[in-house]
Amino acid sequence: MQEWFLRPGQAPSEKHRAKAQAWQRQLTKPDGSLGRLESLAVELAALQQRKHPELKKVNICVFASDHGVCAELVSAFPQVVTAQMVNNFINGGAAISVLAKALKAEFEVVSLGTVAPVHEMSAVRDETIARQSGNITCADAMTDGELAQAMDIGREAVARAVETGCELFVAGEMGIGNSTVATAMLARLLDQPAASLAGPGTGLPLNRMAHKIAVIERALAHHRHVKAPLDVLRCLGGFDIAALVASYIACAQAKLPVLVDGYICGVAALTAVCINPSVRPWLLASHRSTEPGHGAVLQALKAEPLLDLGMRLGEGSGAALAVPLLRMACDLHNNMATFNEAGVSEH
Amino acid sequence: MQEWFLRPGQAPSEKHRAKAQAWQRQLTKPDGSLGRLESLAVELAALQQRKHPELKKVNICVFASDHGVCAELVSAFPQVVTAQMVNNFINGGAAISVLAKALKAEFEVVSLGTVAPVHEMSAVRDETIARQSGNITCADAMTDGELAQAMDIGREAVARAVETGCELFVAGEMGIGNSTVATAMLARLLDQPAASLAGPGTGLPLNRMAHKIAVIERALAHHRHVKAPLDVLRCLGGFDIAALVASYIACAQAKLPVLVDGYICGVAALTAVCINPSVRPWLLASHRSTEPGHGAVLQALKAEPLLDLGMRLGEGSGAALAVPLLRMACDLHNNMATFNEAGVSEH
Repeated sequence: MQEWFLRPGQAPSEKHRAKAQAWQRQLTKPDGSLGRLESLAVELAALQQRKHPELKKVNICVFASDHGVCAELVSAFPQVVTAQMVNNFINGGAAISVLAKALKAEFEVVSLGTVAPVHEMSAVRDETIARQSGNITCADAMTDGELAQAMDIGREAVARAVETGCELFVAGEMGIGNSTVATAMLARLLDQPAASLAGPGTGLPLNRMAHKIAVIERALAHHRHVKAPLDVLRCLGGFDIAALVASYIACAQAKLPVLVDGYICGVAALTAVCINPSVRPWLLASHRSTEPGHGAVLQALKAEPLLDLGMRLGEGSGAALAVPLLRMACDLHNNMATFNEAGVSEH
Repeated sequence: MQEWFLRPGQAPSEKHRAKAQAWQRQLTKPDGSLGRLESLAVELAALQQRKHPELKKVNICVFASDHGVCAELVSAFPQVVTAQMVNNFINGGAAISVLAKALKAEFEVVSLGTVAPVHEMSAVRDETIARQSGNITCADAMTDGELAQAMDIGREAVARAVETGCELFVAGEMGIGNSTVATAMLARLLDQPAASLAGPGTGLPLNRMAHKIAVIERALAHHRHVKAPLDVLRCLGGFDIAALVASYIACAQAKLPVLVDGYICGVAALTAVCINPSVRPWLLASHRSTEPGHGAVLQALKAEPLLDLGMRLGEGSGAALAVPLLRMACDLHNNMATFNEAGVSEH
């Protein structure tokens, strides 16, 4: 039987794209003068299969997990921070929590396994697979079974979002060490050297970058025969990234547009497209991260992000920031008067 | 007696800037990982003279007027469109009307004089100076008295905004032909040739660009001895731009941060700074317009805009789009937990 994640996603509606395009030309503004806002509204119309797209219901889901590669001391923060931040998400103190509230978005935090415990009785959705993924320098990140579990968790998050009437899906991630594994995945997927893609992540000092790159190279050497995207994910990835990949594929299958965050989410998005190319049209790029590998991700996806504000936090924060732009693109598309209605002369 | 617009604006509070900067470093994120959002919050703290800046009350004011230079056929749209669009603003059908509503902003439209009449009984604030400004190719745009009137209108709009408790001022403009006069002003202020600055405005066909440039050059030649910024405004500007200039100066004097829209507003902002340099710190650049001269404006102001979405509509629309970014920068600054509060480990 075919794996669920290989089933093709839906196609955008060319009929609704054309209708929305024609509608844009009737609105009281010089044609093209709203730039990307016009093309965004048209794109959302094609994805949502309606002439007037809406983004009232936005769901933000953060996938958190720990990474065995932290044994190699690749992060500026101790590994315990993953669980601490999960608690912070739930308690409303993290950047993504503040943004989710400001956007009136549905907000969910899914833990796939952390080294330190998350608070009992907290509102986090506990889907622990293991305390952490394997250390990719000397082991597979996941077994086949763990990969399937992590991907199911991502798929189910989307199913819950769809259930609530979600019109735009935003995923985020939290996992100390995940820029290291994401860079290993990206280096293999693009066949580029780690040194050209690796960056400081949450803020590794410059004098430890050579070490981080060497760790990634050791991981790539250990998994030198791993080439297929799904194997790259299993051997070099992590639980959080596997859930992200699966969530993006599930969105394409459910006709749900996705706003992709920065570097880690971008690597997951690229992996999703490599596994299942029908995912690509459902992905909108939100922002350009300062992490150097993100440029390569965006290029590989042929994606032009909306924002370039020097951000590199993750959690889904860059995508959350771009939500008002998409919403206002829809507002303009849906609520502006036509030349005819307003009695405004055209050229 | 010194003219009101020469009185220095307030200075930002370095004390509150330092406090806000120290506060940012305590929030649960790697220092600097929110990029421009961090520096924006700190900047707004310095401008609003409080550790926790707020942008709940945003005022949007659109200044509209007609331009005598339209006799030279420099626009893609007929001159009657200025008044038609004023009616469209009030009726809620224009881009800026839709955005103002989405932002829950105070929205005001001030007409300084249009060739066609605006609807009687409409909610537009009628401050007509004349049906249009002079044709700058062969006359002054304004008399001294008209300039003073237009500047008073801009100042009074800010006074009304301050009265309502405004925390951020956004100005927009509407005036068929105003990209022609703005380019003439900019060419003189920067001492650059019109050809390097002029663009299609609302969408002049490429084959009419040489004509637009020749018209601007004729205006520059006619006013060849005009150099002082205030004279440049009076001879080469227009009522809408004079009101913009005055509003920006008044904001600096009233300690009110300004979010500057695109090209026309940018030329007005630059003029305001040339007339009264203390205005500069109060100006935040919202977006980069596709109008070619806007790059020169931003460079002259040493301003880095937040958005670059290929927009060129005017009306204040680009600034309106950036408001949610500023608001979320404040939300993050004010509502994120500190490392201490959240029990999250630092490096």
